[in-house]
Amino acid sequence: MRTTVGWQADRSGTGLRRTALDRRELRADDVAVRVDYCGVCHSDLHAVRTRAGDAPLVPGHEFTGVVTDVGAEVTRFALGDPVAVGNIVDSCGGCAMCRAGQENFCHELPTLTYAGTDRHDGTTTLGGYSREYVVREQFAYPLPAGLDPASAAPLLCAGITVWEPLRALGVGPGTQVAVAGLGGLGHLAVKFAVALGADTTVITRSAGKADDARRLGGHDVIVSTDQRRMAAARERFDVVIDTIAVPHDVGPYLKLVALDGTLSHVGHLGTITVQATDLLIGRKKLSSAGSGGRPATAAMLEFCARHNITADIELLPSARVNDAFDRLERNDVRYRFVLDMSDLP
Amino acid sequence: MRTTVGWQADRSGTGLRRTALDRRELRADDVAVRVDYCGVCHSDLHAVRTRAGDAPLVPGHEFTGVVTDVGAEVTRFALGDPVAVGNIVDSCGGCAMCRAGQENFCHELPTLTYAGTDRHDGTTTLGGYSREYVVREQFAYPLPAGLDPASAAPLLCAGITVWEPLRALGVGPGTQVAVAGLGGLGHLAVKFAVALGADTTVITRSAGKADDARRLGGHDVIVSTDQRRMAAARERFDVVIDTIAVPHDVGPYLKLVALDGTLSHVGHLGTITVQATDLLIGRKKLSSAGSGGRPATAAMLEFCARHNITADIELLPSARVNDAFDRLERNDVRYRFVLDMSDLP
Repeated sequence: MRTTVGWQADRSGTGLRRTALDRRELRADDVAVRVDYCGVCHSDLHAVRTRAGDAPLVPGHEFTGVVTDVGAEVTRFALGDPVAVGNIVDSCGGCAMCRAGQENFCHELPTLTYAGTDRHDGTTTLGGYSREYVVREQFAYPLPAGLDPASAAPLLCAGITVWEPLRALGVGPGTQVAVAGLGGLGHLAVKFAVALGADTTVITRSAGKADDARRLGGHDVIVSTDQRRMAAARERFDVVIDTIAVPHDVGPYLKLVALDGTLSHVGHLGTITVQATDLLIGRKKLSSAGSGGRPATAAMLEFCARHNITADIELLPSARVNDAFDRLERNDVRYRFVLDMSDLP
Repeated sequence: MRTTVGWQADRSGTGLRRTALDRRELRADDVAVRVDYCGVCHSDLHAVRTRAGDAPLVPGHEFTGVVTDVGAEVTRFALGDPVAVGNIVDSCGGCAMCRAGQENFCHELPTLTYAGTDRHDGTTTLGGYSREYVVREQFAYPLPAGLDPASAAPLLCAGITVWEPLRALGVGPGTQVAVAGLGGLGHLAVKFAVALGADTTVITRSAGKADDARRLGGHDVIVSTDQRRMAAARERFDVVIDTIAVPHDVGPYLKLVALDGTLSHVGHLGTITVQATDLLIGRKKLSSAGSGGRPATAAMLEFCARHNITADIELLPSARVNDAFDRLERNDVRYRFVLDMSDLP
């Protein structure tokens, strides 16, 4: 076993504490990564608050770092290469979804970066809130030169989650896109949609975010409590990316979707209740998205390098992870916390 | 006023009785239609059972007949022309949806063929269970030569409701289509999908409908209670047209949808509850549809004439309308009742 140090949830779910962790010895196709920066995702908070009693829980599934060791058969990486890792670290490789490059939809279920089960040794995976991670090389991505490794970390979960629907829905020049909710996912959706050439509108509850929305590149801003503006925007958007992170009625947002357009519901993965007539009238579609396959993740990183896109982050020493959680719980972040792991040995 | 005779719901909702009815004098752009055949739609039954107490209710919104009189400015029809009328008979004509040829989604709401409110004189519309109907010529369609007028009647509601999603979703040669539910809508969806060149599978609860499914042109049949076949069909279909007419869980049918495919939920227009992850995994879309615009309705009728498609019907004298309702309530029809109005004067 290799050993490292990380931040593990205590069993009560109230916080994380520094702990020594085991990592597996490298398999032939593994690389060891020194984790430099790890983003703090809403789902990390959710996991710690609700599932910390189940098993040792080390969150973190969007991180960047440097290759420090390689297995005997590794071909894609060498020592010192900058890499990025997202929320899946393995898949069956043989099913139709894996063959289609959608390992995130693997029929045998992909292996999650943390709180997953390693498909070879059956151990529970421990995430990127740690100084070292060992990962199959296929699920590490070269971090393109020019991308700041700290602010690139959130691309690997928040980024790919909004990138996939934007691409699948054919967003490009001339597309009318609305991004509902301006948080970790939403602010990246705005940057992507703008860089893809779409006419991009931000819909936010907080009038105070209007300046930010424009700074991020948004061409228009609608405050969702402004009934007049919402009514005037009826059927205006080919694509609505709904990143609102709490349960909410999708009805008012479906009204904004144009004939044959789509609302992609990516912010809250629970039960969605929709009136058939809200879809029927205007022949609208409801979809969802989350994570991404290997080809799309690599393409997104290249796109980000070309367009100089990373997340807007607040960088904290990893020892302040509990502060980050408390503030995330109050929505007090613009727009993603990233933990600097250099305070770990 | 013109007078005619029709079948009006009694206030208790238990049945319909023969009644004398008023029709408006022809406006300049109206035609009078002698109604020869009127289909019996599930929504007729629903209206009679639940809303008969509200106002005089004469159902019927899919009918064929012959033009017997024309207003002063009518240009599209002459006396004796065979015509068809569907479930909308007017719209504002000026909104974006009307301008896009989607009068069924008119922002000012289209005028329904029955139980609607005429947008000029404010009267409640009375439907096609009657010997004469007066309609704005724009909302009557020439019935193509060669289409049997009795079995063509259901095309105007059941037909267009499934035609629109099939066309909007680009169904054609090579598309894998499943039609769930083999009733009035479903059997037409099968005929359309087959004629469009799609590889078409019928999913039905009733093993007894398998022969019918193949006779209608279906290339494969899955009985939905056969868990093994359902599991084997996972992610097989680009398009699932869900015509099941009662509230049901869409989850098992979403599992059949392929990557980036769509389930169109057209059979039951209530609340749909869906798990975001059932959409997320495989990046699937949920849509709905109902009725259609004027250009699509005309195109569907031409397609039906070219491919010799009409509904499979059971023709009854209009005086047996109450029998038809009772049997429809028990699902005892393959696949649509049509009333023969020639027993009315």
